[in-house]
Amino acid sequence: MTTSHTTPWAASRLAAVRPSFIREILKVTEDPTVISFAGGLPNPDLFPLQAIEEAAARVLRDEGTQALQYSTTEGFLPLREWIAARYARRGVTVHPDDILITTGSQQGLDLIGKCFIDTGEAVMLERPGYLGAIQAFAFMEPRFCTVPLEDDGPDIDAMAATLGSDAPTVFYAVPNFQNPSGVTWSGEKRAAAAKLLEGSQTLFVEDDPYGELRFSGTSHPPVGSMLAPDRRIMLGSFSKVASPGMRVGWLVAGPALRGHLVTAKQAADLHTSTLTQRILARFLADNDLDSHIAKIREAYGHHAKVMIQAMEQYFPDDVKFTRPEGGMFLWVTLPQGCSSMDLFEKAIEAKVAFVPGAPFYVDGSGGNTLRVNFSNANEAMIEEGVRRLAGCLESYLAAC
Amino acid sequence: MTTSHTTPWAASRLAAVRPSFIREILKVTEDPTVISFAGGLPNPDLFPLQAIEEAAARVLRDEGTQALQYSTTEGFLPLREWIAARYARRGVTVHPDDILITTGSQQGLDLIGKCFIDTGEAVMLERPGYLGAIQAFAFMEPRFCTVPLEDDGPDIDAMAATLGSDAPTVFYAVPNFQNPSGVTWSGEKRAAAAKLLEGSQTLFVEDDPYGELRFSGTSHPPVGSMLAPDRRIMLGSFSKVASPGMRVGWLVAGPALRGHLVTAKQAADLHTSTLTQRILARFLADNDLDSHIAKIREAYGHHAKVMIQAMEQYFPDDVKFTRPEGGMFLWVTLPQGCSSMDLFEKAIEAKVAFVPGAPFYVDGSGGNTLRVNFSNANEAMIEEGVRRLAGCLESYLAAC
Repeated sequence: MTTSHTTPWAASRLAAVRPSFIREILKVTEDPTVISFAGGLPNPDLFPLQAIEEAAARVLRDEGTQALQYSTTEGFLPLREWIAARYARRGVTVHPDDILITTGSQQGLDLIGKCFIDTGEAVMLERPGYLGAIQAFAFMEPRFCTVPLEDDGPDIDAMAATLGSDAPTVFYAVPNFQNPSGVTWSGEKRAAAAKLLEGSQTLFVEDDPYGELRFSGTSHPPVGSMLAPDRRIMLGSFSKVASPGMRVGWLVAGPALRGHLVTAKQAADLHTSTLTQRILARFLADNDLDSHIAKIREAYGHHAKVMIQAMEQYFPDDVKFTRPEGGMFLWVTLPQGCSSMDLFEKAIEAKVAFVPGAPFYVDGSGGNTLRVNFSNANEAMIEEGVRRLAGCLESYLAAC
Repeated sequence: MTTSHTTPWAASRLAAVRPSFIREILKVTEDPTVISFAGGLPNPDLFPLQAIEEAAARVLRDEGTQALQYSTTEGFLPLREWIAARYARRGVTVHPDDILITTGSQQGLDLIGKCFIDTGEAVMLERPGYLGAIQAFAFMEPRFCTVPLEDDGPDIDAMAATLGSDAPTVFYAVPNFQNPSGVTWSGEKRAAAAKLLEGSQTLFVEDDPYGELRFSGTSHPPVGSMLAPDRRIMLGSFSKVASPGMRVGWLVAGPALRGHLVTAKQAADLHTSTLTQRILARFLADNDLDSHIAKIREAYGHHAKVMIQAMEQYFPDDVKFTRPEGGMFLWVTLPQGCSSMDLFEKAIEAKVAFVPGAPFYVDGSGGNTLRVNFSNANEAMIEEGVRRLAGCLESYLAAC
């Protein structure tokens, strides 16, 4: 399917929406001889396939009729209880009633946009910011403002200034191992941001798909845990710790927010698949998720280490990159004036791919940046891919 | 979750959206001593549970990694091919590329609203109309206009007049065994409506969740099959023929429409569950859906017959009701000036429930109508429930 055709029925809001650039990129990288760091896929070798197979069999045998029938919009209660207990272990008090199961956390963004973003209102994003959020929010035709990301989180002075000048209705952020940058907010920046938000008119939306995938350093509490329940929404997902294809995520929202979100969810898809919710609940009850996550952490940590070592060895000195403590991505910055899009052309010829950074910026900047994924490749491919990319960088930077 | 709290962040479009009235009704009917004709649930005794159990086991054994991974927004190709072949059997030419898998057909409504309904534009509905469509479209803040339903479909003169006066961007209809009325459009009305639509500026959205559930009379071609592919969208669902809990539906749209819908779908939930799509595709490949549907038709036809006979026997003469040839609902009309909401209060006391008709009208009319479901009750309950309802009707009508 393409968007090359037009129709007289296209709503004006579509002018604000771009089809996913990454989607287009991924088509170029389907060539199996290309080493692709472009995607954002969890490593399928680490899916808990057998445990999910057993959970599915048990659900269909023991509660099959309920698993195939319509159910409540809020989601399967035992699954919400499991999620609440998981927050409790991190010292965050969340009641199962505060949890709405969503069709992946992407749906959470869609629902938040519909409920809390009016046309023309300001929405604040990190710079760079998560592309899926830009896409979902764009349908509500906001104007975007941004706060620059530093190595340890948002520039707090810039955040204070933008909260004041733009009075955004929503600030959306990914404080752990952000997509695309891999940056994690420090404890100090979390506290400072929470303080600013408490004094603002802005609803904080904290997305955390990668928080469990920390392979070094120490965890920090969610920023949302420092805010009143009706001042923040926390999003979560089973995509990176169990299975993305099942499309089960959640959001946590206080009593003043959640009723609207439930109404929007009902209009969007009635409820998330009863079958996948019950399979996940069974899987989580019958297995030790932590020992499964430990395997993912170890593998991704090893991948990241191999990639960083290769970049240190092969990349030109004036190319900078982040050193994430978890997640699936790192972020490369070329010297000012260089174009990662031009580099991409050369890289594809050299059979290596990444995602140019510009789409993660809403202000036209970021043309010298790029995103690299390390979760979905093996050690040899990572080393060889970085070597190929380094070769492209050398010839490109010499001419740039 | 309730909507009794408010928040300063509520978007202005929420003023146009009501939480589902049926949802509230269903809470009242949770009392197991109430015979409920209020819901809209397929009969769970007819779920193909064992076949889906086998399909799930096979999918997870043979293609488990792919079933748990992210996949394309458009949906699983073999499933789209099966759907295209099913249309072909009915003489309707649909290419798999024209099909987008959705998270239930409810999501199709959400995507259509986002892509093709601008704030303030007119959307035409049948009167009465499907509540889920009213809810989904309301988020785009259209103004609604309606065309009255007669026993054999829309009032064609009124449709012509409203197409001219309101120039709706979209006309949404359920021409087979409509929810809520049970009405089916005749062949003549289909042809007349298609002719009007071809000459209009209106995109036709044809929802068909119940078309396969015909238990008497003969089928008619989809209205959309008489229109150019870029002038109509056809929605379908596996909810009523396989499992509603799996949340898998689809839409069919021409090349000028589908690119926008794919972009909107990606922003809404990336894609529909890979696991449920593959289980359904496996189920459809390994089983004869037609023989399964034959069982559903027979059961629902029997339920409808028992209900109609009981209504003929017990209902007062001035209470009218439809005699559907398929689907899950029939529609009761009380004498003008009576209120089905007042009747509902009495009915709950008498331990029988239905859905008052007013929420299916966007113009404040319909207060003397009500929807009755016959799919999800057994013969004895249907007879007893109708008897209780007839008792309420008699005492209510005497005082009304």
